[in-house]
Amino acid sequence: MRHVKKSAKMLQQFNHTESNIPGPPAPEEILSAAARIRPYIHHTPVLSSQAISRICGTEIFFKCENFQKVGAFKARGAMNAVLSLSREDLDKGVCTHSSGNHAQALSWAASIVGAKAYIVMPSNSNKVKVDAVRGYGGMITFCEPTLAAREETLLNVIHDTGAIEIHPYNDYRIIAGQATAALEFISESGPFDIIMAPVGGGGLLSGTALSTKYNAPGTRVIAAEPEMADDAYRSFRAKEFIPSVNPQTIADGLRTSLGSLTYPIIFSHVDDIITASESGIVQAMRLVWERMKIIIEPSSAVPLAALMQHSELFLGKRTGIIISGGNVDFDDLPWRNH
Amino acid sequence: MRHVKKSAKMLQQFNHTESNIPGPPAPEEILSAAARIRPYIHHTPVLSSQAISRICGTEIFFKCENFQKVGAFKARGAMNAVLSLSREDLDKGVCTHSSGNHAQALSWAASIVGAKAYIVMPSNSNKVKVDAVRGYGGMITFCEPTLAAREETLLNVIHDTGAIEIHPYNDYRIIAGQATAALEFISESGPFDIIMAPVGGGGLLSGTALSTKYNAPGTRVIAAEPEMADDAYRSFRAKEFIPSVNPQTIADGLRTSLGSLTYPIIFSHVDDIITASESGIVQAMRLVWERMKIIIEPSSAVPLAALMQHSELFLGKRTGIIISGGNVDFDDLPWRNH
Repeated sequence: MRHVKKSAKMLQQFNHTESNIPGPPAPEEILSAAARIRPYIHHTPVLSSQAISRICGTEIFFKCENFQKVGAFKARGAMNAVLSLSREDLDKGVCTHSSGNHAQALSWAASIVGAKAYIVMPSNSNKVKVDAVRGYGGMITFCEPTLAAREETLLNVIHDTGAIEIHPYNDYRIIAGQATAALEFISESGPFDIIMAPVGGGGLLSGTALSTKYNAPGTRVIAAEPEMADDAYRSFRAKEFIPSVNPQTIADGLRTSLGSLTYPIIFSHVDDIITASESGIVQAMRLVWERMKIIIEPSSAVPLAALMQHSELFLGKRTGIIISGGNVDFDDLPWRNH
Repeated sequence: MRHVKKSAKMLQQFNHTESNIPGPPAPEEILSAAARIRPYIHHTPVLSSQAISRICGTEIFFKCENFQKVGAFKARGAMNAVLSLSREDLDKGVCTHSSGNHAQALSWAASIVGAKAYIVMPSNSNKVKVDAVRGYGGMITFCEPTLAAREETLLNVIHDTGAIEIHPYNDYRIIAGQATAALEFISESGPFDIIMAPVGGGGLLSGTALSTKYNAPGTRVIAAEPEMADDAYRSFRAKEFIPSVNPQTIADGLRTSLGSLTYPIIFSHVDDIITASESGIVQAMRLVWERMKIIIEPSSAVPLAALMQHSELFLGKRTGIIISGGNVDFDDLPWRNH
């Protein structure tokens, strides 16, 4: 595809930039990230289910980041970002605004290196997630549940503490960390015909695309997104950035817009983006719970749901799916409402 | 303990009986069962959780039979029993009465060897389980939900079809099959100070006790039972068989009484039986879901719940727990009522 070729050129260019000029992570930067975070993260297992492969008509392998520290791939990026900071910066602490897995991941990573983590969370955050952040030692500042309030509150926290902001996805250190999941996956179980990841802000997808194009250039990278939060799908098709506006999908990890750093990587290195319906997401999540006996969160079910909805693209292929996480509120399971 | 010493003597005696005289499975019979079923079953993983080990003050390893074929250890015994039959017997088909995992396991095992499976199920059986049995090709005869009706209906099925009954636990071929779980577990992750299994009819516990005493005689075997279905606990203490009468525990796999074959093995080879409260079972199940991201059924949570309730017995020990299965009705999770 044209944009892939273009991307290869772009990438070469980035690879030849000086290391002090920030750019998308080069192959050696992803390998460095993998070595840096290895003592702290889990090498997660790859599982498959004969039943699910049979139902889908494609041999599917699942990279189980639901078994990762803090229950999500986000531990990789957060750990890499924190380990990339100087001791002087760590002493100021790190901060972010997040109501999801990144908040837990950053709190956890900071606690490992003895740094403070200041987390801005909307006042309507799920109690389970608030407790989890506190459990990892994160210090929470609550704010109104709007993006404007979150950003303003974070600025106040930075002003008061001097803490270093670690964005959930629009940060090359984060992207390099997330890229290590696909690196492990391809090394252990590749090559695949197709590798899939869900897309929200694009941190995992950017990293997956880079690791795949570096290490298995013959593998197609197909992202999956909820129909009800299809900003990346529409951006990809329109070849221009379209933001996500208040999407209502149950895949709560995928409601964010792409970032200025993730969008160009995705546009250059992802082969396709396909979508999944809400009911398809719930069914795919339940199918994995029932057949594989593992807990995956709604966002993690989006690639399988999209695969089942577009099964013609996958027939007879060898497909690798990154399961992004397993943090679920067991008091509010989605099939109660579907 | 006295009854253990006595058991070693009993066992020697059994080991020296002629192979055509039925007796508790000897070491070589368990090894033969393992070799026989190996092509068909999963070598299930052993997982651990730093968080759960820390909470419990003991290093805990979980043998994950929830990842076994049909979602439970029952696949081992059923497969061993079916593979022990002659072709002539297989052509008659196999049968049982069961509303639980054994029904699925026997249907699955029979389908592998091209035999019919006739399953008597109570008319109030959970639809998920009925569908699962049908999915494996089992032919269901429904009956009134009483033990008398189940046994009478099964006799009618046997009369009409000539099928061979495979009892869920009171059968040495079943016990030998279930024993292979502990055999794998000890080989891979042993030795343990303590090995735990839940007890219902006693098939898994008998097999676990035999494999442990043969292969790791220094390991204590501690069974776990719901307080609300504590017939094995009371039998063990009273040194006489006390049946289970209509117990109401949510651990639906553990409501049955011990059998005439399992009771003596348990009395001879199990070191202790401890119990768990209903709320403890629900909490332990949820703890495993939340921390390990794996789906275990209520019966599987009983050992961890009993361990947490009697934590003084386990402090500083290395404990292996057999997770018996992961078949859960996701529309009716126990914490909705606790």
